[in-house]
Formats: sequence, structure tokens, C-alpha cells
Amino acid sequence: MRDVSVIGIGQTPVLENWEKSLRHLAADAVLAAMHDAGIGQADALYVGNMLSGEIAGQEHLGALIADFVGLRGIEAFKIEAACASGAAAVRMGYMAVAGGLADVVIAVGVEKMTDETGDIVAGGLALAADGDYEVLHGLSFVAINAMLMRRYMYAYEIQHKEFANFAICAHQNAVHNPNARFHSPLTLEQFERAPMIAAPISLMDSSPIGDGAAAVVLCPSEQARAFSSKLVRIAASTVATDSLSLHDRNDPLRLQAVEYSARKAYDQAGIRPDDIDFFEVHDAFSVMAALSLEASGFAEPGKGTFLARGGEIFLHGRIPIATMGGLKGRGHPVGATGVYQVVEAVQQLRGECGPNQLAAPRYGMAQNIGGSGATVVTHILEAGE
Amino acid sequence: MRDVSVIGIGQTPVLENWEKSLRHLAADAVLAAMHDAGIGQADALYVGNMLSGEIAGQEHLGALIADFVGLRGIEAFKIEAACASGAAAVRMGYMAVAGGLADVVIAVGVEKMTDETGDIVAGGLALAADGDYEVLHGLSFVAINAMLMRRYMYAYEIQHKEFANFAICAHQNAVHNPNARFHSPLTLEQFERAPMIAAPISLMDSSPIGDGAAAVVLCPSEQARAFSSKLVRIAASTVATDSLSLHDRNDPLRLQAVEYSARKAYDQAGIRPDDIDFFEVHDAFSVMAALSLEASGFAEPGKGTFLARGGEIFLHGRIPIATMGGLKGRGHPVGATGVYQVVEAVQQLRGECGPNQLAAPRYGMAQNIGGSGATVVTHILEAGE
Repeated sequence: MRDVSVIGIGQTPVLENWEKSLRHLAADAVLAAMHDAGIGQADALYVGNMLSGEIAGQEHLGALIADFVGLRGIEAFKIEAACASGAAAVRMGYMAVAGGLADVVIAVGVEKMTDETGDIVAGGLALAADGDYEVLHGLSFVAINAMLMRRYMYAYEIQHKEFANFAICAHQNAVHNPNARFHSPLTLEQFERAPMIAAPISLMDSSPIGDGAAAVVLCPSEQARAFSSKLVRIAASTVATDSLSLHDRNDPLRLQAVEYSARKAYDQAGIRPDDIDFFEVHDAFSVMAALSLEASGFAEPGKGTFLARGGEIFLHGRIPIATMGGLKGRGHPVGATGVYQVVEAVQQLRGECGPNQLAAPRYGMAQNIGGSGATVVTHILEAGE
Repeated sequence: MRDVSVIGIGQTPVLENWEKSLRHLAADAVLAAMHDAGIGQADALYVGNMLSGEIAGQEHLGALIADFVGLRGIEAFKIEAACASGAAAVRMGYMAVAGGLADVVIAVGVEKMTDETGDIVAGGLALAADGDYEVLHGLSFVAINAMLMRRYMYAYEIQHKEFANFAICAHQNAVHNPNARFHSPLTLEQFERAPMIAAPISLMDSSPIGDGAAAVVLCPSEQARAFSSKLVRIAASTVATDSLSLHDRNDPLRLQAVEYSARKAYDQAGIRPDDIDFFEVHDAFSVMAALSLEASGFAEPGKGTFLARGGEIFLHGRIPIATMGGLKGRGHPVGATGVYQVVEAVQQLRGECGPNQLAAPRYGMAQNIGGSGATVVTHILEAGE
């Protein structure tokens, strides 16, 4: 297998964007990434997307977007793994380049969600859960996560406000991210006053949907130097799965696919959790951030919120998370999110994060989660010399 | 890159199957393929599917099906490329094995279409076409193909009945396929009397939708002997794309992605069209069969129907197509079709086709088309010694 590097990144702002269609959003991100990489051609394009058929009235995004960005003819598919679709597309690009089937590959994640009503979007998001065993019984996707959070708070005797710093940190980091949906800091008082969505999940425990696209260009590391002086290599790319249904897991508070995917990633990169300098976590809901920190080896089970309360997740802390705002601050255009995470990790490792820049990070981890932990894609990125 | 072989196949009958849900259909095919290969474990599962979100109320099929067949934990995604989703999943499995990222991979195609009304299914199928430039103007997917057929008949001065043998051959080959949707031969008179769907496409120019699933197990050829005594290797796996919109092509009667994908496949296999012993063609509509034969190098432009009229496409002919019934006779559960084609090619190369068996074929080609030629995935399979 060949070593793989990211040689180009692109992203659109996450917005309620009524001016651009799905294909325009995707093209903006792809063309920005191609420009960043200095390429005019590619061997393949993989599109991460969850809900284009249900919400944007379009499937077959691979050929559509390849053609629209001027790459008519090349290999192109759409990959879907619920909210992990974006990182799944990166994973597929990694496979093609690492395996020697392609030299230059583009992975783009795109989602256009705000053209439809909330009911239709909520119905779409529920397709990430088990249709027969969860959704049919009336559970929305946020309700499933609410059950998980309630269980977490009960089992570990955690108060709601102990999750506050996940949202506060995300909003604070989003302030200086021009592509983030929100640019206002959040106070503890605002967090505590936020209305409930599905108790105990409040508005401020929840990431906002949005329209957006992000893209990366990958190539073999040994060819990467020709394209870019600020190399970032993919030190690990791993996937693990679990049951879609929460009730079907041995212990719903242990995200087994996170554990398995992260462990494989550390093994592939030859490092330990301590070596990770920052973590682009899948904070779709604050409880998912806590559970992911635990299952990824940054905290003991039940102690994820301790990292938040102790300030360790902020930019100056021991394990900074969501360094450009995360899902909560930057926004969560579901099928695009996983690519945004990788793009932001590359920005950190290149030293392009402005006021949010960490001091010379070496390893960044980006972890994208589909459903309530059923598909987990983990990438570890490493700064080049 | 490693050489890859198919070590197991499985399929369900194509039916209007109200007894089995999408996950059950997929599991039937996967478990049959695993049994055929003699394996109890796999490294990854890739699911080809187009419309589960729109019709079956379920996305996130990768993790769902992996879990349901007893493989919880492994890498799993859904791949979508309209009606080429099935072969796209096989292509992804090929990539993983050829590239050395996985040793044993399962690719399954599944579609459950008959639970919904015709309107909803037709709306779903239209998602394969360009939403903004074709569908928005009132075109259904069959109407798009009807324009193509009209143009074909006009340009090449072809009468409708000259397409008859595509349907007659498909129905005849389906008679002895226990997994086919239809088991009645079709007469020329029946073809000529068939009602119009979207002129000039009649009911007998159109393949039927259906519920079904098919699966293959892939592994490196050098390990394959341990599993199976009837080896079939993948001599080529290629993809090419074109514009979704018909109007946006230089010449709508030249399927450029078919041409490009087939040429790459011949190059990879180191053979010429003459070496192909049979062709599992994407006969979603009879005009697509004619155009595919032409663009794949089996007939000059405009001469595809000549092969049908001359009987060359039948089992005893020069280039047998749709040897187990094709899309027209076996049925077209859209996201599963591409895997059925590969499974049937393997059956031929193993000598397991009963009354439909060709005499010791060496090379079989399976070609899966998404939309009206926008995504084309071609596999060439070769019988082992």
C-alpha cells in the first residue's frame, strides 16, 4: 500500500444557502480544492452525501458533479453512510490512492438541506436510524440521542450543565471561522436557558443542519511534493460499524464502533491517544462528544464531561476538540461534515487557522459518526516536515 | 495491485416480494454467497442500492446489513450510482481487495421497490436523470429513453419491430433461470401488440422493476484456491461517466461512457471485443441494448439491432447477451442489477447455467449502466483453469 497525502482542500461556508443548488455547492468546494492543489485533472471523484434523493431531488451525484466541475468521463460514485458519508468518501479516495488504482482523487462531501421543511429534514435524518426497530415506533433521530443522553446522565450521575462547555467551546472556536454557521460566543447562562428539543437535549446540545460542501484532493505522498509545500499525510484511515439500533448493543454507553475504529487508527499510525494534538470530534449532540472522547481513549467511561468542565477541550487545553467550531459551531450539513472535519484538520496541520491556530500540532484526528454510533470513520492526519 | 477472484455468489429470485423486507433480501443473498464461498467472516461489505431512502424508508444500509448478517463491526458503506449502483459496489470491493486494503470482501446489491405505488417508483427512478435540466421539465426516466429511441430510429432508419429480438431473446433465456421474474417465452406477435409506455418504447421494450438482491465474495486470486475449485477471476474492472443530461452530449447516440469504460476494460484484460464469449448487457430498454453493443465494440454505430435481427445475440449466436434473461427477463431491481449481472457471468464461467449453459466460455463481460449512460461500470470475468 502507498502512503497518501492531502494536497488540496476546499470548502463553502455553512449557511441556509438559497442562492446555490447542490451541484453548485459541490462544485465550489471541488474547484477550490483543485485550485489549492494546483491540478486541472483527476482520476476519480467520490461524493459523500446522505439525503440528496430525499431533499434535493437528485441521486446519481457522482457523474453529475464530475461533469459539472469539468471532469466528465472520470470514475465517480456517491457514498452513503448516514452522517458519516463525508468521511466515507474520503476513505474511498484513500483506498483508491493507497491501493494504486488511482493517482489523483477528489473526495467531496455535500448536503443541501434547507430547501425543505423541518418535517421532511427530520424524516430524512431518521433514515440513519433503524427504520423497523426505532423509527417505526415514533422515534426521531434527536429522540434516540435524547434517550442516550438521559441514560448517560443517570448512569454516571451527571447534571445537564456539565455538558455546557462542549457548546461553549464549539461556539467560541467558530467565531473566527469564516465558514462557520455561527459567529457568536455562547455564555453558560444562554446554555442553561436554551429551550428543550427532546429532553434532556436542548437547542444548545444540538448541532444545526445547513447547506455546505467541503473537498479534499489526495495523491500518493511520494508525488505530493510536486503539488504542495505544506504536506499533510493520512497516517490512518479506518472504519468500524455497530448495530443501528441502540437497544441492540451490549452497552449503549460504550460506542463500540468508535472504540474499534480509533484503536485501528492508532495501530495504523503507530501512535497512542496521548500523541493526538487535537480531535475533530463528531459533536452532533453534546452527549456524542462525551461518548466519543471516552471511546477514543481520551477519558475513562463516564468521564468525558470532565474534560469539558476542566477546560481541557479548549484550544489551550490537553485535547482541543472542534477547533474550527465542530458540528455545533461550524454547522452539520450531514453528508458534508466528515470532509469539513478533515479539511479543518489539514488547516491546523498547515498552520492556517488564524486566531484558532494550535502551536505546531503534529497529529490531528478527525472522526465522523453515522447514526447513533453505527458507522464510524476515523482519520489521523500528520503534518509533513 | 493484486489479482482478484470471485469465490462466492448468491442471489434471491426477482419478484414482487411482499414477504421480505430490504434487509432480509440482502441477507439472503449475502448468506448464500458466504455459504458458497465457505466463509464465516469478511473484512468489508459494500452495498449497492439506489432508492432505499426514497422507497424503503431506510438509509445507512452498510452498517444495517453488516449487522443483520452477523458481521457487526466490519467496514461497510452504501454506494450509489443510479442503476449502476450494484456494479459500483463490486467495483469498490475490487478496489479494496486489489489494493491490499482487505482480503475478503462482500459486495451486495439490493433493491426493494414494489412496496410503493408506481408514481413513487417512477419519481425515484427519475432521480437518475438531471433534476434541474430534465426532470423539472416533466420528463420521466422512460420518456428520456423514449427520446433516445426515437432519435435512434430516425437517424438509422430502424423500424420498431427490429428491436423485437432483444426482448424475445431475454424472455427465452429467462425461462430456465429460477431467479428470473418472467418464465414465459415471448413471440414476435406479442412484441408487436404490446402497449406503448412512452412511444416508441412499448411494454416489451422495457425491463420490469422488482425486489431482489445478489451478492459476490471477492478475495485475492492467490488465496482463492483455498475457497473454491471453480475460480473466476476479475480480468478488468472499470468505470466511466458522462453528462446526466442527454441534451448535453456531443452525440446522444454514442454512449461515450460505455465506449470509454469498455475500452479501458479490454486494455486491462489485454483482450479485444472478439475475445468476449458473452455479454451481460444493460438492457433496461431495448434501445440501450443496441447502443451498448455498438459502444462496446460489438457492432458499428447504428448496427446494434442487426445483431438482434441476425440472431447473433441468442445463446448459439456470435455474441450471446443477457444469458440468464437480462434486465428484461430476469428483472431490474435497480441497485441490485449490476451484481446479478456479475453473478450470472460467474455462473456461466463455472458452467452452472443448466439449459442456458454456453460451451466452455472463457471471457464474460458484465456492463451496468446508470441513468441514460451517465455512469458505466464494466467488469470482464475470466474462467479459471
